[in-house]
Amino acid sequence: MEQNQQQTTVEQQAQTDREFMSIALEHARTASSLGEVPVGAVVVRNGQVIGWGFNLRERGKNALHHGELAAIHMACSRLGGWRLFDCDLYVTLEPCPMCAGAIINSRIRRVIYGTGDPKAGSCGSLVNLFEIPYNHIPQITSGVLEDECAGLLQTFFRDLRKEKDSKSKIVQKTEDQQQLLF
Amino acid sequence: MEQNQQQTTVEQQAQTDREFMSIALEHARTASSLGEVPVGAVVVRNGQVIGWGFNLRERGKNALHHGELAAIHMACSRLGGWRLFDCDLYVTLEPCPMCAGAIINSRIRRVIYGTGDPKAGSCGSLVNLFEIPYNHIPQITSGVLEDECAGLLQTFFRDLRKEKDSKSKIVQKTEDQQQLLF
Repeated sequence: MEQNQQQTTVEQQAQTDREFMSIALEHARTASSLGEVPVGAVVVRNGQVIGWGFNLRERGKNALHHGELAAIHMACSRLGGWRLFDCDLYVTLEPCPMCAGAIINSRIRRVIYGTGDPKAGSCGSLVNLFEIPYNHIPQITSGVLEDECAGLLQTFFRDLRKEKDSKSKIVQKTEDQQQLLF
Repeated sequence: MEQNQQQTTVEQQAQTDREFMSIALEHARTASSLGEVPVGAVVVRNGQVIGWGFNLRERGKNALHHGELAAIHMACSRLGGWRLFDCDLYVTLEPCPMCAGAIINSRIRRVIYGTGDPKAGSCGSLVNLFEIPYNHIPQITSGVLEDECAGLLQTFFRDLRKEKDSKSKIVQKTEDQQQLLF
């Protein structure tokens, strides 16, 4: 009986995690539609989204415009304090060192991410900032809606490469024509 | 002759570093006067301050309100881009993981800090984020105006302890009186 209850709680948590990751994914899709690397994040408190954000580095022309920082900033503003003790952060991609540092600084309780980032991931992929004896260590859950989160990034970069190839072909064709004509 | 020229250049750089650290220290003093842990930062490009900031976590009620982030944000806004390739960041205290991550993300060329931070320093004191094979590795110079930078922090925390002791004595005195009277 007790085991069943525990199992239900774990399943409920997993379902909740998928629901909030879906919202983070929506924000990532917004980033993609703007030509930004698709990463989205939400901060959740008592079952409510109190902060959200998506990567906007190119359009925002700002190195700080990552989804996690925007979501944490909004959550602090809404709660009127810098400590997000009872808040969880959902993000489609494993946080980079800057965002992992912000998660520690804001005392986020739990971090749930979709897919790992071998190039910059700070929950263990590149470095693990959550195992150093620093101010605060959040709980980590990875792999939530992993296929959707990873797929969105793969599609984005594939399309980007296609676009670049296409542009490069047009440039080559233009140069060829110029050589023939002049 | 050549050696003399090199020496002059090194001395000139050291003098320049002290000058900009003095400006960062002024911002740290502003933080202190507001009751915030005194840390100040400036971003410098071609000998001009293009971004500045100081710690404002308590008053700003925001975990992201570190001096470095404010200075980087301002520099990106002023330059209209996220890459601060030819910019140097001066900060009175060794950057935390969040700020070190932001330094990497914004491609800051050089980081000059005053005093080390054994609790959160990410240039080697707690962790070294600048030695991992990440996007970018800035040059690091430490110990510039170290005594002034460290002294400002020491005075701040000493005063804070005194204030706390004084308040705690008043609370104790009030409790003693209440016990005697009622």
